[in-house]
Amino acid sequence: MNKGEETREMIIKRSAELFNTLGYNGCSLNEIMEATQLKKGGIYNHFKNKDDIALAAFEYSYSEVLKRFKHYLSKESTSYNKILAIIEVFYSFGANPVVSGGCPIFNTAIDATDVHPELRKRAQDGINTLVKYVEIKIEEGKIEGEFRNSAKAPEFALLLVSTLEGALMISRVNDNTKALRTAADLMKTYLKQNILK
Amino acid sequence: MNKGEETREMIIKRSAELFNTLGYNGCSLNEIMEATQLKKGGIYNHFKNKDDIALAAFEYSYSEVLKRFKHYLSKESTSYNKILAIIEVFYSFGANPVVSGGCPIFNTAIDATDVHPELRKRAQDGINTLVKYVEIKIEEGKIEGEFRNSAKAPEFALLLVSTLEGALMISRVNDNTKALRTAADLMKTYLKQNILK
Repeated sequence: MNKGEETREMIIKRSAELFNTLGYNGCSLNEIMEATQLKKGGIYNHFKNKDDIALAAFEYSYSEVLKRFKHYLSKESTSYNKILAIIEVFYSFGANPVVSGGCPIFNTAIDATDVHPELRKRAQDGINTLVKYVEIKIEEGKIEGEFRNSAKAPEFALLLVSTLEGALMISRVNDNTKALRTAADLMKTYLKQNILK
Repeated sequence: MNKGEETREMIIKRSAELFNTLGYNGCSLNEIMEATQLKKGGIYNHFKNKDDIALAAFEYSYSEVLKRFKHYLSKESTSYNKILAIIEVFYSFGANPVVSGGCPIFNTAIDATDVHPELRKRAQDGINTLVKYVEIKIEEGKIEGEFRNSAKAPEFALLLVSTLEGALMISRVNDNTKALRTAADLMKTYLKQNILK
């Protein structure tokens, strides 16, 4: 990485935290300048405008979220264990956030929905990709004989992601991982009672 | 209501929508001035500063949320039907929002957590009050013989609120009520399978 690329990376990383904490609207160029210790020109050398930084920051946060999933999932081989790993990834988002300020995908979804169509679209794709991934793992487990044929993959996937994201927010506002631990454990029980053969 | 009270009410209502859509940081005094068609002095006649407006706007949104709950709950007499009503209130938040921009309590929780301690505390109290209410209804149903003695009230309350709030956000970002409908129906099934006698 040359110096220019390093600076660009640094701007993206610091902005990702700012956007995740302050929101898209709430994060001003002044705050980015302060956090990066750069002047306006130093930032606009690398980005067209605030939008451009916000999108790059989202891509960075999203790739960090995916990295966390891949790290947990790579250790598992069965569909059942992969679903358990996904549940634990969510728990890890509370205990050890990828980017400070909570889940960057859901925060962006809430923050950008009425104000930034492109960012909203990216967050929407992120959430729906995750739901789809869980759905595929359930279908895979049915084919491989681990899960019941009666298991409703799309419904379970939506339940899992809704519950864990909702609990992640409750844990964040309460500043403890209790809600997240409870939701994670309940999802594991639900999985055993309704999905696993 | 005299003219001054009417103006104050109008500022609060319009700001509640702005804060819910743009976030606390993202909503500037200029935007409030534009939405209310008032000059700075006209606003500061009624409020000390932006914080003061934000807190009044939250109180207004919160009271509207409570009104919706009361409206649905007042028609029901059994604990089981009250829990079903709470699930339908969440669905109604997606189909017919109390304040545009999604759930004002969760939005405030996400938005204010790192930046506005007083507002965060209010949102935290709002969420925890709702969880506690569900918990009490489950305990009540156990005493009255409607629910199983083995039902875990705190866990179920947390599951219900997490799931429905998570689904509300997914519905909002996808601009349809599918996630919310699925989560509401699953929670009803869960209630029947695990809580109802």
